[in-house]
Amino acid sequence: MIAPRRIDVDVAPMPYGVTIGSGLLASLGERLRADLDPGPCALVTDEGVAATPHADAATDGLRAAGFEPVRVVVPTGEAAKTPRVAGFVWSALAAAGLGRDRCVVAVGGGAVGDLAGFAAATWMRGVDLVHVPTTVLAMADSSVGGKTGVNLSAGKNLVGAFHQPRAVLADVDTLTTLPRRDVASGLAEVVKCAVLADRAALATLSQNAVALLKGAPGPLVDAVSLGVRVKAEIVAADPFERSGRRALLNLGHTTGHALETVTGHGVLRHGEAVAIGLVVAARLAAARGSGPADLVTTLEDLLIALELPIAVPDGVDPEHVVAATALDKKRAAGERRMVLPTLDGAEVVPVTDDALRAALA
Amino acid sequence: MIAPRRIDVDVAPMPYGVTIGSGLLASLGERLRADLDPGPCALVTDEGVAATPHADAATDGLRAAGFEPVRVVVPTGEAAKTPRVAGFVWSALAAAGLGRDRCVVAVGGGAVGDLAGFAAATWMRGVDLVHVPTTVLAMADSSVGGKTGVNLSAGKNLVGAFHQPRAVLADVDTLTTLPRRDVASGLAEVVKCAVLADRAALATLSQNAVALLKGAPGPLVDAVSLGVRVKAEIVAADPFERSGRRALLNLGHTTGHALETVTGHGVLRHGEAVAIGLVVAARLAAARGSGPADLVTTLEDLLIALELPIAVPDGVDPEHVVAATALDKKRAAGERRMVLPTLDGAEVVPVTDDALRAALA
Repeated sequence: MIAPRRIDVDVAPMPYGVTIGSGLLASLGERLRADLDPGPCALVTDEGVAATPHADAATDGLRAAGFEPVRVVVPTGEAAKTPRVAGFVWSALAAAGLGRDRCVVAVGGGAVGDLAGFAAATWMRGVDLVHVPTTVLAMADSSVGGKTGVNLSAGKNLVGAFHQPRAVLADVDTLTTLPRRDVASGLAEVVKCAVLADRAALATLSQNAVALLKGAPGPLVDAVSLGVRVKAEIVAADPFERSGRRALLNLGHTTGHALETVTGHGVLRHGEAVAIGLVVAARLAAARGSGPADLVTTLEDLLIALELPIAVPDGVDPEHVVAATALDKKRAAGERRMVLPTLDGAEVVPVTDDALRAALA
Repeated sequence: MIAPRRIDVDVAPMPYGVTIGSGLLASLGERLRADLDPGPCALVTDEGVAATPHADAATDGLRAAGFEPVRVVVPTGEAAKTPRVAGFVWSALAAAGLGRDRCVVAVGGGAVGDLAGFAAATWMRGVDLVHVPTTVLAMADSSVGGKTGVNLSAGKNLVGAFHQPRAVLADVDTLTTLPRRDVASGLAEVVKCAVLADRAALATLSQNAVALLKGAPGPLVDAVSLGVRVKAEIVAADPFERSGRRALLNLGHTTGHALETVTGHGVLRHGEAVAIGLVVAARLAAARGSGPADLVTTLEDLLIALELPIAVPDGVDPEHVVAATALDKKRAAGERRMVLPTLDGAEVVPVTDDALRAALA
């Protein structure tokens, strides 16, 4: 039995705790009673998670403490993140008679969390939200920080709200049903956080790489906790993404997003694209002498151990990637700005086409 | 020329000003430049307002100061407050390429403000919002306080967000095209605020009743300012409707909402139902000895002068009204609680069926 970790996210007006552990679902309701009144609530999950034992375990864990969850099942993956599905959830909350003093519990990956979070943010002008993430990506990244939203055909996350959860409960036991490739992909965000944190964190991840991919609970709790700790600190400093501090979380994402766009959705997992983006960022930093010289090698070795890609896939024209990042460039008034690792964290700096071209090669 | 009034709404993290005056639209953009950068913005209005000179005046006023408004026209009245129309506005904002640092300007009555406010609250997780109310109700009530939202078939305002505007500009010249009945209806909320404020405010309204219905700018600026001042104070004390303080704004609304439900939408204007509700509340307070004894007569005289109803319309069974308020009762754990006037404000107290029956008679 691994003792659960608790990491506090210090945001106004209501700080909240992220609990990371193994076997937490059985006590889900009991753990929530510190912050929330039992009684009716909504449990939003997707078809994929509903087919695993986790949705039932969460339901039982809520009932055991007097919560009365009404289950709302949405499509799996990004298909859930649409205004139409948000409308479906609102109708379900209306049918359940969910009052202002009730809560929405999101059980699933990042897409379910984003959708359910948006529904909670907008139901009766905002009700309490609990995240029960069931993927590494959702545990270490998307369930913390208060970003919620849905996509439009014009772009991802164009509609949404900042709505911090009242609590996050990450039970690594739910990762047992997650495909190995998705575990690895989620760990790419943890690697990003390790780069933002310190070299010791990277070393620990390297030591645990095999155990992480095997789903060992202890190393998974450690890895998720690292991601949450780094993200919590940055979110607390910049809850509404205004000061620029939160932009550091985009390390690896300029190239990553461009790769996702260029390859088309579904070819690369988000984390796989980020993994390549991390290597590119480390190369850019090394080339300008502002980052640790050995970081490129360290990162490449770690990502390979985590079965993640480290180079632009065959058949992808680097020029298309350069062009795709230029779309970001326009937004920031004429120059491409990227997050690059430094000796003790990261910084946002301008990056020329030529420099990016060299790093992508 | 009447000097504009400015009333500050002291909410965190960003207080804002409500400017009330005559001839403000021409300088709309100039006035906004204190808080907002010029450039592209969205101007959301409805078909009714688009057919008046006010939408063009607002557009010209914005352009004169370097704003580039893209007009988004929605259906008139409550028909605008649906998830479907919100989706239409989001699509229009996407088509306009409206960025996170841009703003939405709502030009219209309460429905346009609620819808456009919801769109602004949720566009890219929240962009700046400016209210340019064109009805008395929107000026004195709905444009201040940050409530935004849309209706579902299951109920009004079930979906929404708290999103305070960056600025409110109420130009009473826009009321010249408003039907007299709508001017009177909006003034019912001002009467409510006068009851919450003091007896001098009621006396001033009585003196100005004829001028107000004639659309005299000076008295209208005074009346709107009174409503905004009272609402701003309460909103600043309870921005998210949590402490109970904001509930005082429901004076007259328990009976009012019940009357709207019982008579069906469109029979009574909202303000007309509230006018009757104010008299009922004053009678209840007088009957229990907690309110000013002469308030019933004072209120009745004022409301009659404002061409507003003071009694339940013929053909409406008071028992249906009692039953309809009992729906509210359920929500508040078993007893009907109503806002009743006191000697110097208002209070929330339990009200029995019999007491309400007597006051409705």
